[in-house]
Parts: sequence; C-alpha cells; structure tokens
Amino acid sequence: MNDAVSIARDLVRCPSVTPADAGALGVLERLLKDAGFEVHRVTFGEPGTADIDNLYARIGTEAPHITFAGHTDVVPPGDEAAWTHGAFSGDIKDGFLYGRGAVDMKGGIACSVAAVLDYLKDNGGKPKGSISFLITGDEEDVSVNGTIKLLKWCAERGEKFDHCVLGEPSNVEVLGDCIKIGRRGSQSGTLYVDGVQGHVAYPHRASNPVPDISRLIVALSDEPLDHGSAQFQASNLEFTSIDVGNTASNVIPGQARAKFNIRYNDNHTQESLRALVEERLAKACGNRIRARIVWEYSNSNVFVTKPGAFTDLAVSAIEEVTGRKPELSTSGGTSDARFISSYCPVIEFGLVGQTMHQIDERTPVSDLEKLTRIYRGVLERYFSQT
Amino acid sequence: MNDAVSIARDLVRCPSVTPADAGALGVLERLLKDAGFEVHRVTFGEPGTADIDNLYARIGTEAPHITFAGHTDVVPPGDEAAWTHGAFSGDIKDGFLYGRGAVDMKGGIACSVAAVLDYLKDNGGKPKGSISFLITGDEEDVSVNGTIKLLKWCAERGEKFDHCVLGEPSNVEVLGDCIKIGRRGSQSGTLYVDGVQGHVAYPHRASNPVPDISRLIVALSDEPLDHGSAQFQASNLEFTSIDVGNTASNVIPGQARAKFNIRYNDNHTQESLRALVEERLAKACGNRIRARIVWEYSNSNVFVTKPGAFTDLAVSAIEEVTGRKPELSTSGGTSDARFISSYCPVIEFGLVGQTMHQIDERTPVSDLEKLTRIYRGVLERYFSQT
Repeated sequence: MNDAVSIARDLVRCPSVTPADAGALGVLERLLKDAGFEVHRVTFGEPGTADIDNLYARIGTEAPHITFAGHTDVVPPGDEAAWTHGAFSGDIKDGFLYGRGAVDMKGGIACSVAAVLDYLKDNGGKPKGSISFLITGDEEDVSVNGTIKLLKWCAERGEKFDHCVLGEPSNVEVLGDCIKIGRRGSQSGTLYVDGVQGHVAYPHRASNPVPDISRLIVALSDEPLDHGSAQFQASNLEFTSIDVGNTASNVIPGQARAKFNIRYNDNHTQESLRALVEERLAKACGNRIRARIVWEYSNSNVFVTKPGAFTDLAVSAIEEVTGRKPELSTSGGTSDARFISSYCPVIEFGLVGQTMHQIDERTPVSDLEKLTRIYRGVLERYFSQT
Repeated sequence: MNDAVSIARDLVRCPSVTPADAGALGVLERLLKDAGFEVHRVTFGEPGTADIDNLYARIGTEAPHITFAGHTDVVPPGDEAAWTHGAFSGDIKDGFLYGRGAVDMKGGIACSVAAVLDYLKDNGGKPKGSISFLITGDEEDVSVNGTIKLLKWCAERGEKFDHCVLGEPSNVEVLGDCIKIGRRGSQSGTLYVDGVQGHVAYPHRASNPVPDISRLIVALSDEPLDHGSAQFQASNLEFTSIDVGNTASNVIPGQARAKFNIRYNDNHTQESLRALVEERLAKACGNRIRARIVWEYSNSNVFVTKPGAFTDLAVSAIEEVTGRKPELSTSGGTSDARFISSYCPVIEFGLVGQTMHQIDERTPVSDLEKLTRIYRGVLERYFSQT
C-alpha cells in the first residue's frame, strides 16, 4: 500500500497558505504522473485577485468516472509560537501528525492519492472506468479562482464526472461518524419600508415605517417556509437586524430597514425561494405598506445527493473499516461541494474536523491509514458495480 | 396709556441671549418700582449651569391675584449679517419693530407691563386685588434656573396665585386667532427585548429578539391609548427608532431595542400612563418574551386650564379688540406653562409666532398696541368679576 502518511507529511511541509501553492500541487503531480495519470496544471486569475494554481489529473477514458476533489491551500497558522510542533513541520509525535492542513484537508488528499495508487497497482495499473483528481489552491479564501473555474474548464474539455468524493473533514467526533450528502442554501436580503418623516406631535402628517416593518417581520417570521424534506430540516428565515438610526425622540423616521438570512432546503431553488418570500411580503403589505427587498448575491445554493447506490457503497466501506454506520448529514457550513453538485452527485467524507483551523491542527496517524482503506473500499465497490 | 412699543424697544436692545441678562430685567425693575411694585431680583444656580437672574414683582396684598409670566432671555440671533435690521437694534421700519425677542417674548412682556401700568393709573395706583410679574431669564435653554425655581421661591414666601397669563406668542397667523389653554404631556422611553445570541444555521440554540420586539411594537402601536378628551386630541404613541446594529448576516442577535415617544392628554398622568403601557407590554409578552422599558425623565406633564370664567374673559377681551374669537388650543410644543399649571390655572396669549427664532424676527407695532389693549381688557374684566 502506498503511504498516505508520507504523502500527507510532504504536503503539510509546503506552507501553502492561500493564495500560495508552495510546491503542494507539485507533490501530487509527480505521484500521479508516475502512476500514469494525464496531469494538467491550470492557472486562473481575474482582476483584483491573485493567480491560483489548480490541478486536474485523470486516468482512464471510460465511464464510470469517479473524481476525488480537494484543496491544497490552508488557512494561516495564527501564532506560530503557540504551536507545540511547527505549523508546517509535519512532525509525528505520540501517534499524531501535526501541521496546518493535517485534517483540512491535505490529510484527506493524501489518503485518496494513496488509495488510488494502491488500487491501480492491484488492478494492472488501470481502473475499470476512470479516476480523476480535481484539486484547487483556492478554497479557504475567496474561492473565485478554484473549483468553480476548474469545473468549467473540465466541462469545456468534454470531461464528464459520474460521481465525486470530496475529502473535507466531514466527521464530527470520530472517523466514520458522518458523511455530508448536502447542504442547505443560504440567501440574505434587506427589507426596506418607506414611510413619511414628521414630528411626533403631528403623526397625521407623517407615516411611521416602524410599526409597519414590525408587521412585516412578524408575518414573514411566523409562516414556516416548509416543514422539512426527506434529507433536510425545515427551511428557516431569521431577521438578524433592524436599523433605523433615529436619535431624535420627537421625529418619526422616514425609513426602516431589516436584514434577514434564510437557510433553505431542497423544497426550494434560489429563484423559487425569492419568489415565495416576495409573494408573502406583497400579501402582508396589502395596498398600504411600501416595502421592497434587496437580495444579496449568493452562490450558496442548496444541494443534496440523495441516498442510493453511491452513498450505500460509501457507508459500506466506512462500516467495514470503522465498524460505524455514518450519519448522512446535510447540516453545517459551506464547501466546494456546492459547485461540484451542479456537475455530478457529490459526497463529503474525510478526516475528523475537531482541530481544523486551530493551533496544533493534527490527525491521528491511524486515521490516515483507516481513511486510505475506506477510500480503497469505495474504489473496489464503485468499479465492481459496473 | 404707557407705551408698549418703547418698553419693547428698550428690552430688545438688551442682548439677553440665555444665560445673559444684559440689563433686561433692570428695565422692568425700574418701571415696576416707579409704579409701586415690591420688586425682588432672585438669582438661581446649580453646579454645571450658569447663574440666572429672575424677577418677581407684586402690587396689592389681596386676592384675587393675577400674575403675568414671561421670559426676557432670547435665542441667539444666528447670522447677524443676514438681518435686515440689527438683531438687537429695536429698529422700527414700515410699521414693524425688528429684533430678537420682538415676538418671543419681550414684545409680550412690554404689552403686559404697559397694560398694568395703565390700569393702575386709571384705578388710583392700586388693583382691586393683586397683580404680579413672574419673569425669568432661563426659558430658552435648559430652563432649570428659571420659572420652576421662581415658583418654588414664591410658594416658600407664601405667595398664592389665582390665575396666570403667560405672554408667549400663541397666535398662529394673526393676533387673536389662538389661546393656548394646555399642552399634551410628553414621555419617552426605550423598549428592550432580550433573546439568546446564536448562529442563524442553528436557530433552535438561539432566541431571536427581532420578531419578538416586532410583535410588541405592533401590539403597543395598534391599541389606542384613548380616544381624546373634551380639550385634547387622542393620546399617541410613536416608535421612533429600532436599533440592533448587527452586521453579521449569519448571527442571530442577543438584544433588540426600540425608542418611543408618547404625547398624552388629560386622561392620564405620567404615572398612570406608564402603568398603562407597562400593563399592555406585560400582556403582549405573555410568559415568553423578556422585555422591559426604561423610561426617560420628563417634566413635560399634561396640563389644561378648562374653559370657564377665566378663559371666557380672555376671549371677550380678545374679541373686543380684534373682532376674532380665538381657538382654545392644546396643540404645539412646550413652555413654562407646564410648571405654572401646578400652582394655578394658566393661559398663554401673546403676539403672533410666525417669525420667532428666525432671522428678522419682528412684530407689527399695531399688534403691540392691540395686545396692550387686550391685556388691559383682561385686567378690567378680571377685577370687575370679584
């Protein structure tokens, strides 16, 4: 078996804080080229952002095509003096590999590369379909020159993905406790209500937007957006701020505004969700209240990979190695899976996230070994299905 | 008849911008002493405020006792270069007396002094009861060392007032159109609602105060405080601001606050009003919402001098001179009448307020003459009643 631990160490020793690559992709390029992959290094940039190195590598030309996605960039180490072992040392001590990116997610990438090379070695150097790696250096920061552009570049080359495993640290407490199969969408907006400014002593000459925006907030907060779905909890709208900023106690203000954020499930698309909220707002306003919503740009759309053959084989591989049946979760924050989900079903499974982004980020060496065996099990099951 | 116009000019020529007296009270002191008044100059002060000169003068020892109240201080002239005639010139041009305080309210004081001196001259130098002047130099600014303290000083000396005429510019468009017989009270407060801060993605771990404060605002805004009274329009509560100040779209805030102001009529006292609002708030909160009100200090209590013999004689005197039947109004802003009302019935009648506090403040000389005749008519009627 190829050694995930040594690959992980080599990656951790590259100080690839976004947007720096610091040699990380080169580590992968050499390993994959040696194993027969066609490797592409692609640089993306745009005004106002740093140029970013990305890597796409594929072996095989047939379907089915499974891609392992990930990012080699990491968040800054913070106070390096506070680390027990150097943030980019890759030190192994008492069974733990230390360093920024150990779990998020150089460790995950190392396990997938090790598992794939091992699988190929046992199968005459070729998969029964195609295996690829979709690796970016732009995930932790603005995420504009990374996966989203690399996917588009692949599509323009005619690449078709059937399934994706994203090796983000999906486990909460212990390896095998959680697969992420989707995420809720996030959509923010600001509600404006216009009134007519005036003196509090003469309210008939004014129109106070404060009680009116309050009515709209109550109406929009009280009616549930839905009651959940098979894979998701109920969508939820939260008003996060109201601000008028009027300091004069004798003045009725002319405008009030309230900010809100919606976390929505697969009962909605961004478009249908906006339409639903606008419709409810119009109803609550009637012919009297003058209100409008300014929607914020969002690329955090809802997505889900419904439980089925693909999630089943991942669960089976995890159970075999860890003895645990993972939860199929749609909770938590955002990742590049939101972009990949537009191209093929994607699940997220990697190491345990507890120390990610912290001082002394680290993973048990045993988890690296187990995760490699899990990915190996995924490959076996994936290609034996066909 | 003593000359109101020359008294008004003498007063306007004293640049008595609060807290300066600049000789204004001395003008009155000389005139009143000459007419046989016992004149007191009383200085009030307290830490953090300027010492202020006040004047109390009385003639007669018997009831009934009518007092003419007023203030000799004025607001600043603003851009003096913009005045057609010097702000403290007292120039008379085309039938108008120009200068800061011409209508607010040195003109009104001059008319009352002229009317009283004239009345005494025609009545053997003595009234059939008592006449006094209650004049402060601290009305336009913080109003802490003026009428409120002078009234207390008088009460401690055993002075008892039966009625008061405050010579503020009460008329809106033309002399005789309006007597102020009362004012609504004003009470401000801030409503606080406590929730539990949290992440918008995990609303079950948080408690959002924004919809809750919105519910309370709607409840308190929708239920009328009353439906008006014989002399007043309905009381009114206006929320003037809501402020949360949360800029993070993924955070549910921990607290929301809203400011409000109430203008209330004689269906309430300050105490009963606060109790009513607290009671309604408690009802709207139920057992769930944690809310509280912080009330601001207010000395703007509601007061009214109910129509009757005293207002009737003022109306009669006004009709005789102007041919107009004045409205008995309780609208508009605040004045020292709110303090006087605790001691005796008070009405406000003076010049026309249109140019008060403006560049080129001015009054028609003919209004000074008419207002003097009106005050003279008030005195005749007042003492002939007894």
